[in-house]
Amino acid sequence: MDGVDQLAPERKKAQFDVDEMKIVWAGSRHAFQVSDRIARLVASDPAFRKDNRAMLSRKELFKNTLRKAAYAWKRIIELRLSEEEASMLRSSVDEPAFTDLHWGMFVPAIKGQGTDEQHQKWLPLAYKMEIIGCYAQTELGHGSNVQGLETTATFDPQTDEFVIHSPTLTSSKWWPGGLGKASTHAVVYARLITDGQDHGVNGFIVQLRSLEDHSPHPGITIGDIGMKFGNGAYNTMDNGVLRFEHVRIPRNQMLMRVSQVTREGKYVQSNVPRQLLYGTMVYVRQTIVADASCALSRAVCIATRYSAVRRQFGSKNGGPETQVIDYKTQQNRLFPLLASAYAFRFVGEWLKWLYTDVTQRLQANDFSTLPEAHACTAGLKSLTTTATADGIEECRKLCGGHGYLCSSGLPELFAVYVPACTYEGDNIVLLLQVARFLMKTVSQLGYGNMPVGTTTYMGRAEQLMQCHCGVQKAEDWLNPSAILEAFEARAIRMSVACAQNLSKFTNQEEGFAELAADLVEAAVAHCQLIVVSKFIEKLQQDIPGKGVKPILEILCHIYALHLVHKHLGDFVSTGCITAKQASLANEQLRSLYSQVRPNAIALVDAYNYTDHYLGSVLGRYDGNVYPKLYEEAWKDPLNDSVVPDGYHEYIRPLLKQQLRNARL
Amino acid sequence: MDGVDQLAPERKKAQFDVDEMKIVWAGSRHAFQVSDRIARLVASDPAFRKDNRAMLSRKELFKNTLRKAAYAWKRIIELRLSEEEASMLRSSVDEPAFTDLHWGMFVPAIKGQGTDEQHQKWLPLAYKMEIIGCYAQTELGHGSNVQGLETTATFDPQTDEFVIHSPTLTSSKWWPGGLGKASTHAVVYARLITDGQDHGVNGFIVQLRSLEDHSPHPGITIGDIGMKFGNGAYNTMDNGVLRFEHVRIPRNQMLMRVSQVTREGKYVQSNVPRQLLYGTMVYVRQTIVADASCALSRAVCIATRYSAVRRQFGSKNGGPETQVIDYKTQQNRLFPLLASAYAFRFVGEWLKWLYTDVTQRLQANDFSTLPEAHACTAGLKSLTTTATADGIEECRKLCGGHGYLCSSGLPELFAVYVPACTYEGDNIVLLLQVARFLMKTVSQLGYGNMPVGTTTYMGRAEQLMQCHCGVQKAEDWLNPSAILEAFEARAIRMSVACAQNLSKFTNQEEGFAELAADLVEAAVAHCQLIVVSKFIEKLQQDIPGKGVKPILEILCHIYALHLVHKHLGDFVSTGCITAKQASLANEQLRSLYSQVRPNAIALVDAYNYTDHYLGSVLGRYDGNVYPKLYEEAWKDPLNDSVVPDGYHEYIRPLLKQQLRNARL
Repeated sequence: MDGVDQLAPERKKAQFDVDEMKIVWAGSRHAFQVSDRIARLVASDPAFRKDNRAMLSRKELFKNTLRKAAYAWKRIIELRLSEEEASMLRSSVDEPAFTDLHWGMFVPAIKGQGTDEQHQKWLPLAYKMEIIGCYAQTELGHGSNVQGLETTATFDPQTDEFVIHSPTLTSSKWWPGGLGKASTHAVVYARLITDGQDHGVNGFIVQLRSLEDHSPHPGITIGDIGMKFGNGAYNTMDNGVLRFEHVRIPRNQMLMRVSQVTREGKYVQSNVPRQLLYGTMVYVRQTIVADASCALSRAVCIATRYSAVRRQFGSKNGGPETQVIDYKTQQNRLFPLLASAYAFRFVGEWLKWLYTDVTQRLQANDFSTLPEAHACTAGLKSLTTTATADGIEECRKLCGGHGYLCSSGLPELFAVYVPACTYEGDNIVLLLQVARFLMKTVSQLGYGNMPVGTTTYMGRAEQLMQCHCGVQKAEDWLNPSAILEAFEARAIRMSVACAQNLSKFTNQEEGFAELAADLVEAAVAHCQLIVVSKFIEKLQQDIPGKGVKPILEILCHIYALHLVHKHLGDFVSTGCITAKQASLANEQLRSLYSQVRPNAIALVDAYNYTDHYLGSVLGRYDGNVYPKLYEEAWKDPLNDSVVPDGYHEYIRPLLKQQLRNARL
Repeated sequence: MDGVDQLAPERKKAQFDVDEMKIVWAGSRHAFQVSDRIARLVASDPAFRKDNRAMLSRKELFKNTLRKAAYAWKRIIELRLSEEEASMLRSSVDEPAFTDLHWGMFVPAIKGQGTDEQHQKWLPLAYKMEIIGCYAQTELGHGSNVQGLETTATFDPQTDEFVIHSPTLTSSKWWPGGLGKASTHAVVYARLITDGQDHGVNGFIVQLRSLEDHSPHPGITIGDIGMKFGNGAYNTMDNGVLRFEHVRIPRNQMLMRVSQVTREGKYVQSNVPRQLLYGTMVYVRQTIVADASCALSRAVCIATRYSAVRRQFGSKNGGPETQVIDYKTQQNRLFPLLASAYAFRFVGEWLKWLYTDVTQRLQANDFSTLPEAHACTAGLKSLTTTATADGIEECRKLCGGHGYLCSSGLPELFAVYVPACTYEGDNIVLLLQVARFLMKTVSQLGYGNMPVGTTTYMGRAEQLMQCHCGVQKAEDWLNPSAILEAFEARAIRMSVACAQNLSKFTNQEEGFAELAADLVEAAVAHCQLIVVSKFIEKLQQDIPGKGVKPILEILCHIYALHLVHKHLGDFVSTGCITAKQASLANEQLRSLYSQVRPNAIALVDAYNYTDHYLGSVLGRYDGNVYPKLYEEAWKDPLNDSVVPDGYHEYIRPLLKQQLRNARL
């Protein structure tokens, strides 16, 4: 059976050109070609094998990651890969490692917050990996609230040094990836204190370990914070704990782009606008949204392929049972996730454009769009990561019992993904930031401030507060402007309702705290509107390839209408749609599911994931699930012997009623 | 700081008698005393230590479980524990083991499906654990659909034996706990074939391994199916794979209570009604609901205590930051789960009564309530396990980053719990069964068949289809009959709408398949009504103890009103409540959260969980979270050395630019 493509009949059903869709998914022909080449390169190299990951002990796992990271770097040099290709290679290796923080946080922090001299000194070292850096911000007692950090950096004018110190247990740096075992350096965030005055939190480059023997520098206590969720997963990463006992660093290791301390110990703010720092945040969050579409699509790919392989119930006249993908209950859970993966992909693409736009404006000293861009990326980070974490677990459940096996790949995918809901801003905290921005926007309506970018629709508040959805039959829900209007009306009405309720409080902050849950929901409504509208905008572009655009239109409608159903309370109670229209949306949704069904396998093939990258027996391209599950089982260490270790000590005495004198 | 109760100030805020609440939670003073004694016994015995579980390799983990199981059995004998106490001890040990299946499935299967002679032969062996048994039903290719099993048991009249055989790869038994390594026997489900005729699936007692040296019997291939989700978690269990190559067993090892095969090979059905088998199902599902309240309450206990310890933002004048439990966004997610744990506890208690009632009726040959009891337990199993799995993960997120550490206890709690959504009936399949029953009930309305038990309200369909919710101000939502009516009206209207849509199909089965997603939602509405109404009924009982009843009333209202909010679309689109009333429910909910807040810590103390059982640094009774987190970190094997294993091979060559010739 092995070698035969079990899913070939499914692939034949596709009504669109899969190769063209692969290019749409990748973003461009060039991006497709690069990612395809790198993914195959990694998949075909036994040094990057990962199927044994769940069985390794923590130490073996970590050592193996060190090996892969070194090997990956060697290959990057040998093959003279570009920065883009190198980063793609690291992500194809699919194993969290200290290098993620080195390239993704340490280098950008120096670039963004360092002066030109600092760039000249540190970046060449970092680019060659002559030093390994991490990003030490979070503390044991302090996460999202950066201003609450306790670590201090006190200037000593006598020696022209900063003294970095951890005054309390809760000020221990805690969580930074790459810190625990691998890094030689860190950008450490600490309260800057000069002459007894606290100037708030700033970044400092601190060497942690000797470049000769890797021993920690004097005054530095450093270690790994212990096992995290899941098998393999983030346990390949040395998230670390770090304490400083009056550690001295030269003054020029404070990152001084936006504020400086002079030789005399004077604190000076530079004329570089602080807003520049937000540019980095937009960048980081844009990558998180792209990662979300990637993680969700992996889970969807596994669940979709397995749903076409798995059969259950419905056998007629002794024939085969029904493929579970044919059940409406399965479609109703799976296809909205399939649509979401595409939706997040496109909104991520748009965020890339937004980042470029913001960067250009910042360079031209135009800060006007920054608050909107900031709120929008914060909201989309929150929306997509929450939906992805939930979606991966839903895909695991859609695979029934077998999804619970590590060899399905889904447990590890979930465990390795969920931190995205917490890092770079807790998702609820971010939504509250979005809500704050929306309330401000609402309060300024009618004062001549036209809302910009993703809030443009709020400028039509008056009309949207009154409009009635024109849907009269199920097909009317296929009209993009009907969908858009419903989402816009819902979003603005929820925001306005919050603003009205807020206005009843004499103390605005108290009101904001009291109504936080409602505000979060208004923010979600706004963010969902953004995703829907960017999907619709994408479809207004020229998309070549037979049948590609029509199937994307179907996915766009599924994404929008499943949200109408999921958040029906919002839509109906704000009067945006009627109960009858809601039921028409459901009816249309069912018809859309039937239209997706024959294309489902091809739609997940379009992600172009190698079996190595998917890492799932259930999601294999060829659908040969059962023989491979059976084969995998025997690799478990427990199967090294037929009679298990422990039989003589524990099972036999039990069976023979000889426990009384056993040593247990 | 260690030793001081950090949460003492919180405990002082409680407005009710915690000791009395402990008794309410346990179900009775007796139950409280037994569980308290057993839990302390386990917690104080170092043999039951479990804090190192996440760091053990699969083999170490399994061997350790064998040791604990043997030790637990030794203690059970030494202390002459009753059956109830023994089962409590096993659950206090808190580690899935082969004994769970021996006592929970193997023994009950023989009891329920075996004849008197079979009882006499097998039960004494099982009771003394002279044999270890498991329950081999699920196959690699067949889960929920028992009738689709492929394993065959063919009667051979020549030898008076059954030949058990696995005809295909997909017929391999797959998943049974305790099968892989520990069990000597199994109840195997196979297609009974006599004289070429297939009589469907039946149970057979099959010896798998030698009682002398534990080697598998000839023709039997057996092993473990490999690593499962999470650290520790279900990896302590030897879920197994099993293949038969024409294995012969004596005819009298077929479980013959409801059907027999004679010496001549004739298939005979006994006069024992098949419905008796459903009694067992009601029993098993009732224990699953009880387990749900247990698992959810553990997660809630951890998240509640940590939310009172953790502070973030909101520092005023340099004072401490705000406890996160004081944020409405935290309360809005946490308190409904706190209420759900209590709600599930009480509905579980009621299910215990239902099981007794059903058993008594069955003994009196009264099968009239069986379909309703069956639907009701199926639905509650589905509802409570789904909510619990989601709730545990939500509690993990409520603990922010630290919830991701294994030392928080939450990752393992989640990983070990989620199979409950799949085993004993996939949750969606079960809801479809409930829906089928509801459709039948609706179709019979008006034909003189008065609905019974939990469907009694459907007898008032006419009134409930018309009624208007009378709530005019927020406090009106505290009226139990207003709540009940809203839930009843919503449930019946959704069922009736489904029935009407079904009637438009000429083929009912096609309609059922097409409308499956709506039917599932109608079933959920019905099941939520049951939970709400049983909570309300519980409050109509006499509940002693200062303040106990009032705080339970608050929890009951939170449970109901958070569902109104969550399923707002149902309530508003069916016209059960208006948008205005929905907003009043929200307002009332916020006020209820404020009332719960001072009682939150005491409400989770009432679960009476030992720190051993909770297994969470974040959920420690004394709230000394940070010092213990810090302490735990150093126990990770990665911290055995300051410079990690792998430095010389991989990190140093990287830093020194000497990778070119390195062996990687």
